[in-house]
Amino acid sequence: MAMIRNSGIIFRQLFDRTSCTYTYMLACSKTKDALLIDPVKELIERDLNLINQLDLKLKYVLNTHVHADHITSSGQIKKILDGVKSIISKESGAVADVHVENNDSIKLGENIDLLVKSTPGHTNGCVSYFLANGPCVFTGDALLIRGCGRTDFQQGDSGKLYDSIHSQLFTIPDECIVYPAHDYNGNTCSTIGEEKLYNPRLCRTRDEFIDLMKNLKLQLPKLIDIAVPANMVCGV
Amino acid sequence: MAMIRNSGIIFRQLFDRTSCTYTYMLACSKTKDALLIDPVKELIERDLNLINQLDLKLKYVLNTHVHADHITSSGQIKKILDGVKSIISKESGAVADVHVENNDSIKLGENIDLLVKSTPGHTNGCVSYFLANGPCVFTGDALLIRGCGRTDFQQGDSGKLYDSIHSQLFTIPDECIVYPAHDYNGNTCSTIGEEKLYNPRLCRTRDEFIDLMKNLKLQLPKLIDIAVPANMVCGV
Repeated sequence: MAMIRNSGIIFRQLFDRTSCTYTYMLACSKTKDALLIDPVKELIERDLNLINQLDLKLKYVLNTHVHADHITSSGQIKKILDGVKSIISKESGAVADVHVENNDSIKLGENIDLLVKSTPGHTNGCVSYFLANGPCVFTGDALLIRGCGRTDFQQGDSGKLYDSIHSQLFTIPDECIVYPAHDYNGNTCSTIGEEKLYNPRLCRTRDEFIDLMKNLKLQLPKLIDIAVPANMVCGV
Repeated sequence: MAMIRNSGIIFRQLFDRTSCTYTYMLACSKTKDALLIDPVKELIERDLNLINQLDLKLKYVLNTHVHADHITSSGQIKKILDGVKSIISKESGAVADVHVENNDSIKLGENIDLLVKSTPGHTNGCVSYFLANGPCVFTGDALLIRGCGRTDFQQGDSGKLYDSIHSQLFTIPDECIVYPAHDYNGNTCSTIGEEKLYNPRLCRTRDEFIDLMKNLKLQLPKLIDIAVPANMVCGV
């Protein structure tokens, strides 16, 4: 069963067809407090409409890292909704209301408690957010479905990414659902168990992984020169 | 909580970025028997790979209707995997191993029992598949998230669609999750309660709805002349 099962949590996965980014909305069904993970600037209206229609109160906007392929809506949301706090890792160096570090806990309402897991390698400030009572983990660009984030810009480091995934994510129970920040093949989720068995990049030795990542020969994201500086300051 | 909660069911939502079609995979976690709803021909490898990696046995391929915008992979899957049965409504007039009608039940393994709900209007053979122990309903092109299927070709009938949705879908409990065959705005699911409140087309009188649908002025789907005849014979 690859789905959050906890009935105390309202959950939505949202997709940006342009950058293939997944945004996640989590809310406590008791207090109606809500948070967004990795929202996309162009889709702010869709996301805020949904929160409004579901009668939720947005409290936090989290980013898993400083994105290079799209601009976050966190700053814009803060301008529209009073009291919303932006959250990103301290290590990212980006501006935010709250800076988190490994093992920090982000509590919301009565039912949501996200554990911050430091998973650098794609960027040096990448974190994953683990929800024990999902169970699920929002892996950003560290672990993707049958893939992983690239490591050839923004302080990327293949060895570090391999270690992050193996020590911080592959140690979570197998049935935990993986919700990544992107998927380009129409997959919406996976599980830790599946990725341990079938991720073609991670089922290798560390040296093989580093070698493979060195030879991907990918084009730079179109938006990188605009998105990275913008995302260092909440996208505004 | 907009997600299937039943832990006896393995569930995946899959997306086709070209036609914005959602394919669904459901399996009984006990017997490992699986079914696919609305699979897309070009993505057969992705879908069969997933079933293989999850160690499932595909038994049924269901279509909610004769699609006009993509070709089903049901016939091709039957050629590859022995014993798989294709399922579509009798009313559709399409070739299949099993023809279903309103109130029929499709049982799979120990945990899956889909109730067929006749929801014509987009085409005259449209059905929705209701899973009471989700609870969720796969609505095909009848009810979309904040929208509905068009009614200007393939025996489309706006009045019939309005009646189908109101009598067959809006009578399901509010918390039931809606999984449509398409979404063009990056939404992955909704609930019956939300659509009753916020679907801009369905929150109208029957006459207003018919009038609105008459004036949509949509272009024909690019693939209609290829997809409809192909889908009448399982896509092959």
